[in-house]
Amino acid sequence: MSSRDAIGVFDSGLGGLTAVKEFLRVLPNEKIIYFGDTGRVPYGTRSRDTIRKYAFQDAQFLLSHNVKMVVAACGTVSSVAGDLLREKLAVPYTGVVNPTAYTAVRVTKNRRVGIIGTAATVNSHSYKLRLQKLNPEIKVFEQACPLFVPLVENGIIDPRDVITQSVVARYLDPLRDQGIDTLILGCTHFPILREAISDFMGEKVRLIDSGLETAVYAAKVLREQDLLSDNPNEQTPEFFVSDTPDGFKNVAGLFLGRDMEHTVTQIDIEQY
Amino acid sequence: MSSRDAIGVFDSGLGGLTAVKEFLRVLPNEKIIYFGDTGRVPYGTRSRDTIRKYAFQDAQFLLSHNVKMVVAACGTVSSVAGDLLREKLAVPYTGVVNPTAYTAVRVTKNRRVGIIGTAATVNSHSYKLRLQKLNPEIKVFEQACPLFVPLVENGIIDPRDVITQSVVARYLDPLRDQGIDTLILGCTHFPILREAISDFMGEKVRLIDSGLETAVYAAKVLREQDLLSDNPNEQTPEFFVSDTPDGFKNVAGLFLGRDMEHTVTQIDIEQY
Repeated sequence: MSSRDAIGVFDSGLGGLTAVKEFLRVLPNEKIIYFGDTGRVPYGTRSRDTIRKYAFQDAQFLLSHNVKMVVAACGTVSSVAGDLLREKLAVPYTGVVNPTAYTAVRVTKNRRVGIIGTAATVNSHSYKLRLQKLNPEIKVFEQACPLFVPLVENGIIDPRDVITQSVVARYLDPLRDQGIDTLILGCTHFPILREAISDFMGEKVRLIDSGLETAVYAAKVLREQDLLSDNPNEQTPEFFVSDTPDGFKNVAGLFLGRDMEHTVTQIDIEQY
Repeated sequence: MSSRDAIGVFDSGLGGLTAVKEFLRVLPNEKIIYFGDTGRVPYGTRSRDTIRKYAFQDAQFLLSHNVKMVVAACGTVSSVAGDLLREKLAVPYTGVVNPTAYTAVRVTKNRRVGIIGTAATVNSHSYKLRLQKLNPEIKVFEQACPLFVPLVENGIIDPRDVITQSVVARYLDPLRDQGIDTLILGCTHFPILREAISDFMGEKVRLIDSGLETAVYAAKVLREQDLLSDNPNEQTPEFFVSDTPDGFKNVAGLFLGRDMEHTVTQIDIEQY
């Protein structure tokens, strides 16, 4: 099989592997080529120009593997560089914002939707603008949660842990007060905190996982363009990173939800 | 005055400004040229090779301003790339490890010393090796505190804040149990958490600020080599960063402990 049959997925780091997990569930016969920019993570605190430059390089790297679609599994990139990638790439592109916003609009009953993400994602208002374009009557409540990524990356994710609980409460208390019935997890790290977030928000608030919604949307695009793989077997994903792959296996296991067969290769992203 | 009279100080980000604060107190007549690698921060989670490459570029940038001394105000760089910089640079160099270890050995009475830093600093055992070289009888207790930097960068530093308290307690409880009387703050961000750390450890534990000790040591080196400035006036520092300087003023104010006159310029560090 040539990699022309592969879907290229990238993120600023390894958080996008939570989206890969959903791609493997929704599209088990598709080959996934993943690039995690671990040498330049995090993007969320960087300037707009820097994020756009990095995102374009990341997409170029995936295209050098002849992928048939590029997916930015990264709230920050989708929010800040989505327009650039959609315009410049010669293959179908999707970020996480549009598929996720579409689902949120569909499922909310009281039209009060919350969105949490990195500072860059929230400051871009990308989700809010998209939600209100889809339905101007929707009230959107935004909250940056800059400590969630470090919590996840340091494994402080147990919903019974006092640190996890107090950080979740600090950020989500204002959203709970607003009576939202739908909350978008607008950063690929956040599904790892799903249980702690759900415990705090209560079971009546529907959590929308941007990785899952994006996988479902990508499947629809590929089907419509007759680009789905006809390979009957499950495919082994290939992973690429821009810093050394030390410790990759453990983090990948956390984000993918299981140990799985894989290859991981370090590349020099500045060349793209 | 030519910048040949300046001291060059760098850090992976803006944390090193806590060291600049001490340099301005200890050496008020010296010109400081500071480079904060905000475009590639953090270093603490990156591989050894990457950290060494970045540190060498950072030093080259400062040397392009003809500084008379290079200071790595960064526990990670000092621990991982100190040997490289000491060997390769044509001007005096110091990191934070040696001056800080020397003071800790001098002040401890029960010879039980704690050291906290990023994962990279602690995993390098640089402080431990140096302390035990200075005095083999010293017992050293190391603890990585990877959430301290995100706490500081998100302003969650109030010693009465439950998040600050619970994160401090999580990391420092094992050190308190060991009965240390001296604790090295082995990361330039950590002095911002000094009050919370001191509240938890108790007033009998002496906190050693690596920035202050490094400033005192740099003064000694310059005096011995007859390189001290003879300029009678206070100097305005010059700041350089590798991402956009948006928001620099607020962060600099936090780390320097005051608003001060300054210039800040963005440069492309990959050129060095």
